[in-house]
Amino acid sequence: MIYFDTAAASPMLSTVRDEMLRIMNMSINGEIGNPSSLHSAGSKAKQELNEAREQVAKLIGVPPLEIIFTSGGSESNNTVINTFRNQPILISAIEHPSVLRPAEEYGNPCIKVPVNQTGIIDLEFLEIKLKETINKCPKTKILVSVMLSNNEIGTIEPIEKISEIIKSLKTKGHKNIYLHTDATQAIGKIKVDAKKLGVDYLTFSSHKLGGPVGIGALYVKSGAPLKPLILGGAQENKRRAGTGNVVLASGFKIAAKNALETPEKFKANILPLRNYLAKKISERIPIAKTISPIDINNQANQCLPNILNVAFPAAEGESTQLYLDLEEIAVSTGSACASGDLEPSHVIMALYHDAEIAHGSVRFSLPITTTKQDIDQLMEKLPSIINKIQDLSTIKPKGNS
Amino acid sequence: MIYFDTAAASPMLSTVRDEMLRIMNMSINGEIGNPSSLHSAGSKAKQELNEAREQVAKLIGVPPLEIIFTSGGSESNNTVINTFRNQPILISAIEHPSVLRPAEEYGNPCIKVPVNQTGIIDLEFLEIKLKETINKCPKTKILVSVMLSNNEIGTIEPIEKISEIIKSLKTKGHKNIYLHTDATQAIGKIKVDAKKLGVDYLTFSSHKLGGPVGIGALYVKSGAPLKPLILGGAQENKRRAGTGNVVLASGFKIAAKNALETPEKFKANILPLRNYLAKKISERIPIAKTISPIDINNQANQCLPNILNVAFPAAEGESTQLYLDLEEIAVSTGSACASGDLEPSHVIMALYHDAEIAHGSVRFSLPITTTKQDIDQLMEKLPSIINKIQDLSTIKPKGNS
Repeated sequence: MIYFDTAAASPMLSTVRDEMLRIMNMSINGEIGNPSSLHSAGSKAKQELNEAREQVAKLIGVPPLEIIFTSGGSESNNTVINTFRNQPILISAIEHPSVLRPAEEYGNPCIKVPVNQTGIIDLEFLEIKLKETINKCPKTKILVSVMLSNNEIGTIEPIEKISEIIKSLKTKGHKNIYLHTDATQAIGKIKVDAKKLGVDYLTFSSHKLGGPVGIGALYVKSGAPLKPLILGGAQENKRRAGTGNVVLASGFKIAAKNALETPEKFKANILPLRNYLAKKISERIPIAKTISPIDINNQANQCLPNILNVAFPAAEGESTQLYLDLEEIAVSTGSACASGDLEPSHVIMALYHDAEIAHGSVRFSLPITTTKQDIDQLMEKLPSIINKIQDLSTIKPKGNS
Repeated sequence: MIYFDTAAASPMLSTVRDEMLRIMNMSINGEIGNPSSLHSAGSKAKQELNEAREQVAKLIGVPPLEIIFTSGGSESNNTVINTFRNQPILISAIEHPSVLRPAEEYGNPCIKVPVNQTGIIDLEFLEIKLKETINKCPKTKILVSVMLSNNEIGTIEPIEKISEIIKSLKTKGHKNIYLHTDATQAIGKIKVDAKKLGVDYLTFSSHKLGGPVGIGALYVKSGAPLKPLILGGAQENKRRAGTGNVVLASGFKIAAKNALETPEKFKANILPLRNYLAKKISERIPIAKTISPIDINNQANQCLPNILNVAFPAAEGESTQLYLDLEEIAVSTGSACASGDLEPSHVIMALYHDAEIAHGSVRFSLPITTTKQDIDQLMEKLPSIINKIQDLSTIKPKGNS
């Protein structure tokens, strides 16, 4: 099988499994207990949890105490947005549903900042809206939440520039503006340094790194407000209730350590392959529209090195996915999180305002193990599949009479 | 080591580990992907997730579609309480912090129903308060949340009787009353049948059954309202966003299957040992006060078969715990979720309104593997430890001049 859907699920690393197995065996043998317990089985568990926290914190260059373990990226995002319930929340129009939906629900108001056709946020619009919001409610806390890179198209957003805009407003006396970035897709693909980005909150998750599903992290800068989403026990410094998860945290630790090295590898090995795929598609299927930005310099500073989103007009993305699946090639349409939804991708709609492009879009997300041969094999099948779907389609591609 | 803290953390079952390993290897080999993905790696994952859901649902006798997977008991409880945000919420005074704290925060009002000295809820008080609430706001939705059994003292609450009270109010036209029970401690220790209990919502968790930490379940009766706590993707029938967790769900499946058999074993083997421990303590340490109800008929219908809570006057529970830990015996004071808190247990305070009793209380929670020898070994050490702590204490036991 050729697996080009690593953005939805990365295969687990075998070293992650081995570490989880070590901790599971400690639990089976009664050597570790609940990390909140005060006896020695508890403190052994707590020690493992702390080691994991240190390694996970190191991945984004922050102190371990500023990391909260959560159940994943969706919970981390919801925790931040819920902290600003009934306050103004500004987001990009292409956020992941786990930012978009709570922001729409809790923001008062929720302001969506448009993006251009490569998916880059309109910084001028953002600044104008921030100033308007400050004028309307000068003492209210404001949250800006913009993803570090988009999960469907791979575009990298200018978080440092957003941070500078906020900093300059702060020097004018508006201290209550906070910046969150969802780095779930970016982490492990490009280098992520929370302090350099200048954010107050940063979300990331274990399973996109080859770690286990079910654990994520939320970086909360010391001093930034945080309202627990899950209330109850005193775990995670009273910021997230629920039994501390030593097995998953230890798996996350191994994945986080590995992810310190992967951005260089993605840039060196995968970005050229992704650009090769883009070139082959435009040669063989000229009607295809490349949605993701193409880094011609192979620098991976406009787009993640492993995501390529392409729209095939008059070929439903879901049909393309199913035909490719019959050839044992896995790709996706939009995000797995939105599957089950018949609506066209809100991300592609925000770029093109065109349902045909959105319905025709396909995401190729390349794992670190991708070879040129994988891409050549895909390209042996893809053109004829697109042709077949277009022939069966009742929609005819525009300008292809 | 003698481990009498199974209420805080149950050792993982080796069969759970083996099943998780099977799924982890499928992930490593790329055989399964994200269960929300539409390609075959996704559908294989979804199939595993559905099998797990069926087995977990079977444990409490409900249809699989009425089960939502969450990250654990705390999240399940918060999800229910948050659904009734700004509405009247009635709880017992001895709920777990993950019910108590959100109910205090979101209930409008939050009404706490007192318990008697064995920890049984005052049904008359509950009924009066329910009627008052209905009179004040006849059209508002009302939530009653009472745990099936208490985590610190093991008392089993009369959920069926509460359900009857609500049913009789419903026949008088007040349809908007909903009943939730937190069965996290009860599950696997006594038989739990959601339909027989007559509840609308029921919380339980995997790791109390020897399954993995990080996954729990929430039963939501068809037709009962539910507001997702974590908004975002369309997972769990749009009721809980976040990547579906096949590894943890499969571990939970094995633990849930095993837990169909454990209540009988606890009743037959552990309840007599627990009662033996209670008898030995009262013989050897006459000043000790048994907090948990004692089922003299060994029927396990007033108390969980494996929890015994005892207060040792003028002996801080935490000291008892630490001295026992030096002898390689693990016990706890109150719940692990509250550790880090210097406040006396709110549960024991609700029973006795006496900080000395609360500070002196110790919870022995016996795993299914407990032997008479384990208890005899504990009893070789416990009396002298209590003596030593009482001697060092500045507080003198009342009536022991």
